[in-house]
Amino acid sequence: MTFRDKLEAAAQKSQSLLCVGLDPDPDLMAELDVIRFCRRIVEATSDLVCAYKANWAFYESLGVEGLQALQEIRRAIPAGIPVIGDAKRGDIGNTSAMSARALFDVFGFDAVTVNPYVGFDGLEPFLMYGDRTSFILCRTSNPGAEDFQSLPVKGPGGASEPLYETVARKAKEWNTGGNVGLVVGATYPAELRRVREICRDQLILLPGIGPQGGDLEAALDNGLDGRGGGLIVSASRQVLYASRSEDYPDAARAAALRLRDAINAARGTV
Amino acid sequence: MTFRDKLEAAAQKSQSLLCVGLDPDPDLMAELDVIRFCRRIVEATSDLVCAYKANWAFYESLGVEGLQALQEIRRAIPAGIPVIGDAKRGDIGNTSAMSARALFDVFGFDAVTVNPYVGFDGLEPFLMYGDRTSFILCRTSNPGAEDFQSLPVKGPGGASEPLYETVARKAKEWNTGGNVGLVVGATYPAELRRVREICRDQLILLPGIGPQGGDLEAALDNGLDGRGGGLIVSASRQVLYASRSEDYPDAARAAALRLRDAINAARGTV
Repeated sequence: MTFRDKLEAAAQKSQSLLCVGLDPDPDLMAELDVIRFCRRIVEATSDLVCAYKANWAFYESLGVEGLQALQEIRRAIPAGIPVIGDAKRGDIGNTSAMSARALFDVFGFDAVTVNPYVGFDGLEPFLMYGDRTSFILCRTSNPGAEDFQSLPVKGPGGASEPLYETVARKAKEWNTGGNVGLVVGATYPAELRRVREICRDQLILLPGIGPQGGDLEAALDNGLDGRGGGLIVSASRQVLYASRSEDYPDAARAAALRLRDAINAARGTV
Repeated sequence: MTFRDKLEAAAQKSQSLLCVGLDPDPDLMAELDVIRFCRRIVEATSDLVCAYKANWAFYESLGVEGLQALQEIRRAIPAGIPVIGDAKRGDIGNTSAMSARALFDVFGFDAVTVNPYVGFDGLEPFLMYGDRTSFILCRTSNPGAEDFQSLPVKGPGGASEPLYETVARKAKEWNTGGNVGLVVGATYPAELRRVREICRDQLILLPGIGPQGGDLEAALDNGLDGRGGGLIVSASRQVLYASRSEDYPDAARAAALRLRDAINAARGTV
């Protein structure tokens, strides 16, 4: 079963495009035990999501013990729900092969995020896993995305286009196996529309709603594919830290439910 | 003591610009124990190098146990020799802050490699560690580097320049704390010259000699700074796997010695 099949089955079952980001931050968590915190978040939200996403950085900041926790949390997620390893990897070929092995074989992620700067041979080891999906950073949700991603480059035919559009075109060209997605921040709706125009049938992982300021309706209006899907709307802080006291699982559930329903309302399916 | 001070002291002591990459590959290693393998490589080469570099991918491919080994290996390196955590990180600000904490505080690396695609606010958490150095990927050593790094973008004044030159200019602009270096592959000597022209006084980490095909003399000719330094010449496979039987420490020492002396000969200091 491919990542995409698994994602579509989970989205259908939970009637949801919401992906909860399991990013444990000791400064914000209502309890000290990372594994217990994430397990309780999963228990409280698993019928409301199409996927989970775990950002490697939050676990590595806790050292080897944190990465051990990541592995246990991955295993605790119900089998039908795919998990994205948000690791933003990308290196020369023989090194990327090692990271692909780590993320897919050792940690068991169904999908990963990768950074395109190294070019094709650095991403190929990830793409060779035909049943997994690799989401290429295209237009990230942060202010600094302007620094390089928006620079005008000479596109096909000699016309000028921002770098992220060239990345989107390459992501389309490299999608021969149907397993290449893109990461586009909800904070840039016009850019999201351009990427969707270029990559009509590819999955887009959409961070940036909520604390980062992205408008949900504008993002859905610009990012949904022709069938009203193709988006994975990622939210972390607004779900995980909806409450910072011991009722946090209930508060996380309420926040996830509100988000799921708001997404569906904007999709026009409710 | 800053990374740069530590590096210069080690380079002076060992009369060397060589950095040995501790990238344990179970398919190539002459023994099974990663910690023992790396410790013996370090014991055999520590008087011949200015730094060590550990590529995170090789350790994560071995799972949590591999990352535990990475931590032990870091601790086993003599205090006077700086260690570069080659992790190629880069994410939005709050997430990069987590990775910076992991690499600098938890794992204790003296320097890291970072990917510029996310832009300044994604790199800032690394740069805020003033005593460490962050090496920004500029022109990588792999064939796919052409895909994006060489695309013509509109540079300052409206003239066209390849993207990697714009990255080099930004790396210079961001070097207000003197702790921003660049990664440029030895496989592209002309591009290395351009980067050196832009970043006259910054450290350049130079992978790609040996198995990847980079010519050492051309790289030094194009990459040394005005004082005949400023380069860290990284070599991994040709040292680690010089022998694949039990004499590997001696073989690694001989290979490192040859490389150190070849670098010095090309620098004209021998």
